[in-house]
Amino acid sequence: MKQQYYMPTRVIMGKDCIKSNPEIFLEIGRKILIVTGAKSAKNNGSLDDILSVLSSNGQAWTIFDRVTPNPSIACVKEGAAFAQKEKVDSIIAIGGGSPMDAAKAINLLACQDISDENLFSGKYGTEILPMIFVPTTAGTGSEVTSYSVLTNDRAQTKTSLGSPILFPKYAFLDAKYMKDMPLDITINTAIDALSHSIEGMITKRANPITNSIAAESIRRISSCFEALKSGDLSLEQRFELLYGSTLAGMVIANTGTTAVHSMGYSLTYFHNVDHGRANGLILAAFMSYINKYDSRLITSILSIMGFKTIQEFKDTLDILLGERRALSREEVERYAAIAAKSRNASNSIVIPDMEDLVGILSEALLR
Amino acid sequence: MKQQYYMPTRVIMGKDCIKSNPEIFLEIGRKILIVTGAKSAKNNGSLDDILSVLSSNGQAWTIFDRVTPNPSIACVKEGAAFAQKEKVDSIIAIGGGSPMDAAKAINLLACQDISDENLFSGKYGTEILPMIFVPTTAGTGSEVTSYSVLTNDRAQTKTSLGSPILFPKYAFLDAKYMKDMPLDITINTAIDALSHSIEGMITKRANPITNSIAAESIRRISSCFEALKSGDLSLEQRFELLYGSTLAGMVIANTGTTAVHSMGYSLTYFHNVDHGRANGLILAAFMSYINKYDSRLITSILSIMGFKTIQEFKDTLDILLGERRALSREEVERYAAIAAKSRNASNSIVIPDMEDLVGILSEALLR
Repeated sequence: MKQQYYMPTRVIMGKDCIKSNPEIFLEIGRKILIVTGAKSAKNNGSLDDILSVLSSNGQAWTIFDRVTPNPSIACVKEGAAFAQKEKVDSIIAIGGGSPMDAAKAINLLACQDISDENLFSGKYGTEILPMIFVPTTAGTGSEVTSYSVLTNDRAQTKTSLGSPILFPKYAFLDAKYMKDMPLDITINTAIDALSHSIEGMITKRANPITNSIAAESIRRISSCFEALKSGDLSLEQRFELLYGSTLAGMVIANTGTTAVHSMGYSLTYFHNVDHGRANGLILAAFMSYINKYDSRLITSILSIMGFKTIQEFKDTLDILLGERRALSREEVERYAAIAAKSRNASNSIVIPDMEDLVGILSEALLR
Repeated sequence: MKQQYYMPTRVIMGKDCIKSNPEIFLEIGRKILIVTGAKSAKNNGSLDDILSVLSSNGQAWTIFDRVTPNPSIACVKEGAAFAQKEKVDSIIAIGGGSPMDAAKAINLLACQDISDENLFSGKYGTEILPMIFVPTTAGTGSEVTSYSVLTNDRAQTKTSLGSPILFPKYAFLDAKYMKDMPLDITINTAIDALSHSIEGMITKRANPITNSIAAESIRRISSCFEALKSGDLSLEQRFELLYGSTLAGMVIANTGTTAVHSMGYSLTYFHNVDHGRANGLILAAFMSYINKYDSRLITSILSIMGFKTIQEFKDTLDILLGERRALSREEVERYAAIAAKSRNASNSIVIPDMEDLVGILSEALLR
């Protein structure tokens, strides 16, 4: 297994970093497609900041704001057709994981003729438009990865497409857009980011550089556990969560994720459970499974968060995630079977078989 | 001050990573200039590994092995003329900071017509050959930076040139080439890397991402302090030092260094003190100076290494660096004056004036 680290996105960060760096926007193109969701970018001030920069730069833009949560293949095809029709030369994505992931796929499909069969193959040409990403949640890390996760109805799950050409050229990190984010979204996205770093450390592709970055990511996110429990977060803590999630993105850009994500996708696909929450519901049980094979690794991950046992970590997750809907035996078996076929599931240092996956999902969620 | 993180080099790591990844070498070109020093790459096995990969790939190469320690402008001009004459299309650098830094400048001067006046201006075109870097010391971090530090006789110091086009395309990290490295070089290069991460945290350009990486770098390097004192290092510890130094390179690629480096250059230029050792002789006194303005920052850096006071850190440095030649009052004043004019000196969170620099250098080295 090749030990590799690569993350070529230029990250600009800090309060008001968009308005302080208009020249960077000027660099990417003359007619820009803005990809975003229906509401949040309009409400949190991020879209206004960007439009004001583009206006003073004299740049033209057009907006595609029909990205839905867990975007479908149909959604990104619609966006790609729009991009072609509008003859844009660059893309700005604003939002959480859905608009950012959609923007990458829209870009790819607008620039290249890719059949449905090849969509998730990774075998693409080199044509792509330059992209600027502005995350407005602190979870996905999509701003520093080359992945786009789409809802794949054919496989009844979410499937990831990826290519080095899909790294955004720039990412702008400003937590001020998150200051009014509802607590449940704040928690779910923080747990998503935490899960990225923890899963990254458990993959076969983990290496000393990704582990270094993962450790600092876990440190930053877990320093906010008490604030997340109380629901009272300062702007500084919002920044900690944002930097933690970008660092986690730098990890999974190189390591990928694990069966936690594979199984989480079923909770999202079949039960509409938020993606980060879905990971959080499964994470501790997956760590218990890995602990049987490499307790030193799991202990070292726990110690970064100040925990001695998986149970202590689970107690914190339980407080943060609250009540959950249990699964039936049939559901557990069905989702384990879907996960067993996923790429992520074979990415961990120990590869869980069907029985293992049933065991993990049962421990986490069986009624 | 823009808070930014950018490091586009693809890092491949682990034992035997060169021989396990021949296809990457095939990617960079058909006729390769190998830039190295007179001896070490031949003795430590790194050159053999690379030549064996190039041979089986059917690639042509030519070797420029006349890079001296602290390479001069004349040296890189000679290398550039050689590269042009040989019509190479790519460069592999093997060695410590000197061959790696020289390779970047050779590349730039071979591809672009740059006058002596513009050499350190950073105002270059975009033409550059793809580069693969193989560090064989664990200190400089040059494999993941866009800097080339050259001996600048006109300014009687070492001066850095830099441009984003100078990031190597690939870096290969394999500590097996360091297993027979003499202890003094091991210590000096480790202290160089440590100084990079500590200085990086004290710059105005430090940001949460560089600080995250710096903290892990300091953690890895300081975990080897006892082994460095005893002189008995395992291959695992050699890898820790190597990863620590690459992480430190990722830091200074974004933050730059401080007056520690500016003053250290005089010790190297006028007294032939090894570069890393020169930094180590000045580092604690510089931290004492900064401590007067930001004791929280200095305390946090010390705590990463498990120290409570600067004196504890200095005691460790004293053991590692041993006896040193003191400076006269005249030397202190002269080197402070040279440092006061350097870019690095104005890069720290508090900018030392001439009197401050005299104070720092006196505390460190006055007879």
